[in-house]
Amino acid sequence: MSFNSFGKILRFTTFGESHGSSIGCVVDGVPPNLEINEKIIQPFLDRRKPGTNKFVSQRKEADKIKILSGTFEGKSTGTPIALVIENQDQRSKDYGEIAKAFRPGHADFTYYQKYGIRDFRGGGRSSARETAMRVAAGAIAHQILKSNFEDYKIHGCVLQIGPHKINENKINWDFAKTNSLFCPEKEALGIWEKFLEQTRKNGSSAGAIIELKATGIPAGIGSPIYSKLDSEIASALMSINAVKGVEIGSGFSLVNSDGTESSDEMVIDKNKKITFKSNHAGGILGGISSGQDIVARFIVKPTSSILTPKNSIDQNGNNIEIKTKGRHDPCVGIRAVPVGEAMLAFTLADLYLAHKAQIG
Amino acid sequence: MSFNSFGKILRFTTFGESHGSSIGCVVDGVPPNLEINEKIIQPFLDRRKPGTNKFVSQRKEADKIKILSGTFEGKSTGTPIALVIENQDQRSKDYGEIAKAFRPGHADFTYYQKYGIRDFRGGGRSSARETAMRVAAGAIAHQILKSNFEDYKIHGCVLQIGPHKINENKINWDFAKTNSLFCPEKEALGIWEKFLEQTRKNGSSAGAIIELKATGIPAGIGSPIYSKLDSEIASALMSINAVKGVEIGSGFSLVNSDGTESSDEMVIDKNKKITFKSNHAGGILGGISSGQDIVARFIVKPTSSILTPKNSIDQNGNNIEIKTKGRHDPCVGIRAVPVGEAMLAFTLADLYLAHKAQIG
Amino acid sequence: MSFNSFGKILRFTTFGESHGSSIGCVVDGVPPNLEINEKIIQPFLDRRKPGTNKFVSQRKEADKIKILSGTFEGKSTGTPIALVIENQDQRSKDYGEIAKAFRPGHADFTYYQKYGIRDFRGGGRSSARETAMRVAAGAIAHQILKSNFEDYKIHGCVLQIGPHKINENKINWDFAKTNSLFCPEKEALGIWEKFLEQTRKNGSSAGAIIELKATGIPAGIGSPIYSKLDSEIASALMSINAVKGVEIGSGFSLVNSDGTESSDEMVIDKNKKITFKSNHAGGILGGISSGQDIVARFIVKPTSSILTPKNSIDQNGNNIEIKTKGRHDPCVGIRAVPVGEAMLAFTLADLYLAHKAQIG
Amino acid sequence: MSFNSFGKILRFTTFGESHGSSIGCVVDGVPPNLEINEKIIQPFLDRRKPGTNKFVSQRKEADKIKILSGTFEGKSTGTPIALVIENQDQRSKDYGEIAKAFRPGHADFTYYQKYGIRDFRGGGRSSARETAMRVAAGAIAHQILKSNFEDYKIHGCVLQIGPHKINENKINWDFAKTNSLFCPEKEALGIWEKFLEQTRKNGSSAGAIIELKATGIPAGIGSPIYSKLDSEIASALMSINAVKGVEIGSGFSLVNSDGTESSDEMVIDKNKKITFKSNHAGGILGGISSGQDIVARFIVKPTSSILTPKNSIDQNGNNIEIKTKGRHDPCVGIRAVPVGEAMLAFTLADLYLAHKAQIG
Repeated sequence: MSFNSFGKILRFTTFGESHGSSIGCVVDGVPPNLEINEKIIQPFLDRRKPGTNKFVSQRKEADKIKILSGTFEGKSTGTPIALVIENQDQRSKDYGEIAKAFRPGHADFTYYQKYGIRDFRGGGRSSARETAMRVAAGAIAHQILKSNFEDYKIHGCVLQIGPHKINENKINWDFAKTNSLFCPEKEALGIWEKFLEQTRKNGSSAGAIIELKATGIPAGIGSPIYSKLDSEIASALMSINAVKGVEIGSGFSLVNSDGTESSDEMVIDKNKKITFKSNHAGGILGGISSGQDIVARFIVKPTSSILTPKNSIDQNGNNIEIKTKGRHDPCVGIRAVPVGEAMLAFTLADLYLAHKAQIG
Repeated sequence: MSFNSFGKILRFTTFGESHGSSIGCVVDGVPPNLEINEKIIQPFLDRRKPGTNKFVSQRKEADKIKILSGTFEGKSTGTPIALVIENQDQRSKDYGEIAKAFRPGHADFTYYQKYGIRDFRGGGRSSARETAMRVAAGAIAHQILKSNFEDYKIHGCVLQIGPHKINENKINWDFAKTNSLFCPEKEALGIWEKFLEQTRKNGSSAGAIIELKATGIPAGIGSPIYSKLDSEIASALMSINAVKGVEIGSGFSLVNSDGTESSDEMVIDKNKKITFKSNHAGGILGGISSGQDIVARFIVKPTSSILTPKNSIDQNGNNIEIKTKGRHDPCVGIRAVPVGEAMLAFTLADLYLAHKAQIG
Repeated sequence: MSFNSFGKILRFTTFGESHGSSIGCVVDGVPPNLEINEKIIQPFLDRRKPGTNKFVSQRKEADKIKILSGTFEGKSTGTPIALVIENQDQRSKDYGEIAKAFRPGHADFTYYQKYGIRDFRGGGRSSARETAMRVAAGAIAHQILKSNFEDYKIHGCVLQIGPHKINENKINWDFAKTNSLFCPEKEALGIWEKFLEQTRKNGSSAGAIIELKATGIPAGIGSPIYSKLDSEIASALMSINAVKGVEIGSGFSLVNSDGTESSDEMVIDKNKKITFKSNHAGGILGGISSGQDIVARFIVKPTSSILTPKNSIDQNGNNIEIKTKGRHDPCVGIRAVPVGEAMLAFTLADLYLAHKAQIG
Repeated sequence: MSFNSFGKILRFTTFGESHGSSIGCVVDGVPPNLEINEKIIQPFLDRRKPGTNKFVSQRKEADKIKILSGTFEGKSTGTPIALVIENQDQRSKDYGEIAKAFRPGHADFTYYQKYGIRDFRGGGRSSARETAMRVAAGAIAHQILKSNFEDYKIHGCVLQIGPHKINENKINWDFAKTNSLFCPEKEALGIWEKFLEQTRKNGSSAGAIIELKATGIPAGIGSPIYSKLDSEIASALMSINAVKGVEIGSGFSLVNSDGTESSDEMVIDKNKKITFKSNHAGGILGGISSGQDIVARFIVKPTSSILTPKNSIDQNGNNIEIKTKGRHDPCVGIRAVPVGEAMLAFTLADLYLAHKAQIG
């Protein structure tokens, strides 16, 4: 049982609340002699950082990572790597008036029902701030994958914001890395910016669909039946705040195909190389990677914190009206891109170590 | 690490191959003094059984469950409950010609890549036959939930087969229990039957979307951050054979809503009862049940075993053409309904025990 | 959490009660392509079998192992290996009169206090019969170790029965394999036999200390801090019925040495081979194997089932007098030898896989 | 799999090296609404602190605990509690000359063999400094036990130092709390002090046997077969640095008793209270607490760091002579008393939560 840990062999445990002194995590099971230091990890956090553009939360946080243990002279020693980020911008007063209110769409109500006590400051433990530590742990996973699989790369982009969807065949992964909306299509970027601007002005928010792709992963990763690669990816991505759906490969759209189209045919070419003619399976068959690109997608619901008032209740059983003042992303899905990449990378690294254990 | 176990405190471990002597599971952590015996479990298996109608596999199996341990005079003793089903209809010869072939869409290729050896008879371990034991384990989970939550009920239906979708507001859960397609709408049943008949005649197969609903689950079940109820449900359902996507509540459709609609408002009525005005969250907020109905959906891809020939390769590196003879469901999604119900029930029971452990 | 499972990556789950239809286990995480079949496993069980000589329980059991899954053509496939032994000699009537009594030294009282229900037939789940499945699982662990470590061997013997102790420097491991008391010294065997004969005649029983030694294990096995090799061995051995103490290397006797003697000096000889001058540490330093022999010892208390009457109570709160009729070992420690070997082998194999996962 | 975590439901994960910036732990699964704050935890650490008397290491450390998360207004919230202690006295230079040497009896050699890299400063991760975090985690376990079991208390003492043993029937638990040697007998204290003084002067060190007792634990805690209370205690205590043996109740001395003495008879007295006539079982039968006092003992080997030179080797394969300068306990067993208490308390609290999950 592990309430706040993720992973089976490679495992991270996160801690910390939105407005506590710090957030952090412990990453255990990391192979020794890998280059792990602040310089390696910080750039991953910078991609996720609040305040990066006008469409993400204006909270000012340096999000400066500090390694407390597990490395020696810039390399992993095989012992647990503890990482912390000190919270700078705590502005507790912003949240004062919602101390007893249950914000709709948030975890306020359920935490209180479950625990009978809650740290109401900024959502406490349920704040998306926790995801910073996933990104930090993911950076370590990247080092593991890179050191083992020469061609390994991971990509993430926003595929759809509100009604505005990218054609999946037109994804430009390189372009997605250049803009702060992780938009993978040049033509769409301006449209998205206007849409978000208008959404914010409307006192509302938008949902997003994120697409992830890992390349260079060999066949054999994933352990049937209950540590299947797709099952673990689903768990990993669904654990991210505000995520309500996950799909692998062609996902839900497979209901519109039939059996003559839906399975990916294999051929051996002149160079004796095995190739698949399509990738509806998203690189996973029977829970095990096939050597194709690993493809996953997830939906992040519209930010629940909006300026438009909504009905709700408080701890004392009163009906109230509530609207969220202050800094909030009009689309939390955007910042979920590096978080999704980190969770996918961590899942792959973990199941790779599991594979090594049994078969190696 | 647990390759073939599911659950954190309540835990089942399955074993067995499609054409071995038997399949089985061990369910551990079951509370004592519950009524657990073959009569309780068998009806759940009968709903899933092959050969129930012309649209599911014609394999003849009694699927008769036998309890080997963990009960005394018809009640659970708190010790592990081992369950087995003997395989009767093994017809190994049917599968002879595919011994070295990798069937497209199947796990043949990846199992061989991973393990370097495989039991090719009927898909071996990767056969959907394994799901019978999930259903048996789920029956025990039902007993746990029923004995703790008076109003607990679980429902499952097929929401869509191929292009034929039910209006979600027209689901008749009772009707779904009366027909072997788990079709929840009277008008649709005939259309679905014709569609499946035609699909079979075409030598093809169809995908399906399954909807699950658990009622009577109180607020507080689910453990943030990495044992969230939705995260565990995603893992549970994605581990079922041929599943490629999972969503909770309004799921992927939330991308089309905005923040003023997507969060479920709460009110307290005259009787001091807390009510939600909608259930986009599918009964889960911050990974914890809210007291609303738990709603989940998953996609099962079209059966990969079809009569239409497809290109593939074999173990020796030859290009081949392959078609699947013999008994196969034109839509494996149908039989996934009781399996999905079982996995949802087991997840709920497990996280309920976890909740009891910490908070009780 | 795992109530009835042992191991972290290589993991077995046992089930079954003394007088149920069968006992069994599922061994998960086994590497593929190892020779695993009934012929490999049965000899291990034969060493432990009841009825082997007049000093162990006269219960007649063939203890014939049957593999239900996880192998194909005599080799492991990497999928879970389920093993069962059918109970033949159930003689339930023998135990009728103790149905409501709590036998002193037994688990009757605590099981009833914990679960509120118990299978009283032959001790139910708490019977030493369960240890047969540890031996079977251990046989699989042996195959893993043998296939990886050329010089691997495991040895077990009884070091002391009642007051009769072998000089540790005189242990003849080969001789221990030739007699059914696992006595490692020729001169002692006759003395032990007479002592046990007399103990039985007295209506009493004797305790025993077992010594185990694994050779050929390389340096590096064991994972600090909480999966230390010695910590896992302690857990493994203490979980065996009636065990009340475990020690590694020189163990408790180290209290009588001082710091100039207690640590094992290292030297490099002419052939550049690292050698230790002594092995007080039992082959484990900081929880990691050092390359020396792994040495462990455990105490098995005298059999609690004896013919001499003892005071006790029953379920209804009455004071009673109880004596155990029927078949029982005057020294259960004897049969614990193959069980201890199996648990040590399993622990080593498991932590070896864990080592491979992280470092490989 | 969890390399640096202990516990099944209540679980702590430690991190940090002897001479890193800090050491710490994350305690997960803590019930909400318990009083948890620095004032509660600090006194436990003060009992273990280096520099408390002249017989323990002269390293100067305030060992001031800081809570980073998981509490709100002095109470636990049910979220992970992170604790850190900053290392003040790092004096790296003391250890410079042993950077490449393998100290006999230490983990230097095995860590290097396993990981191929090691933080040699003060033993790095293998330093007993890590045990401070066990004590901190144990303090939280105490709060859980105290809040559930009115009569719960835990006691620890040194039972034997070198050849000087206390008569077990003369243990004065209250006296043991008043002196820094945890000596439980007034007459012995002076003798022990002289013995340790002489041991230090001799450039040597001494071993110790520690006894632990938990009172007020009800029957029913512990989960057969592989989470038995005694099995978990053995694992917990054996994981402490320099421990080489663990026993429960009468332990190894049971080999000298026979079956008429070794099992504890039960009677019901006039007040209908169940009483045991003896406690050879140490309060545990079949792996489950019986309601008697829980009694365990463990041996801590003599400190390996001594002033007397010993033969060893270094990383480059040279034979060397090594002696340890600087601050070191002549008997590390003394400081193991609060560590043992903490590990016992944590094990009890953890298995109590496991009991609540299944039965509670």
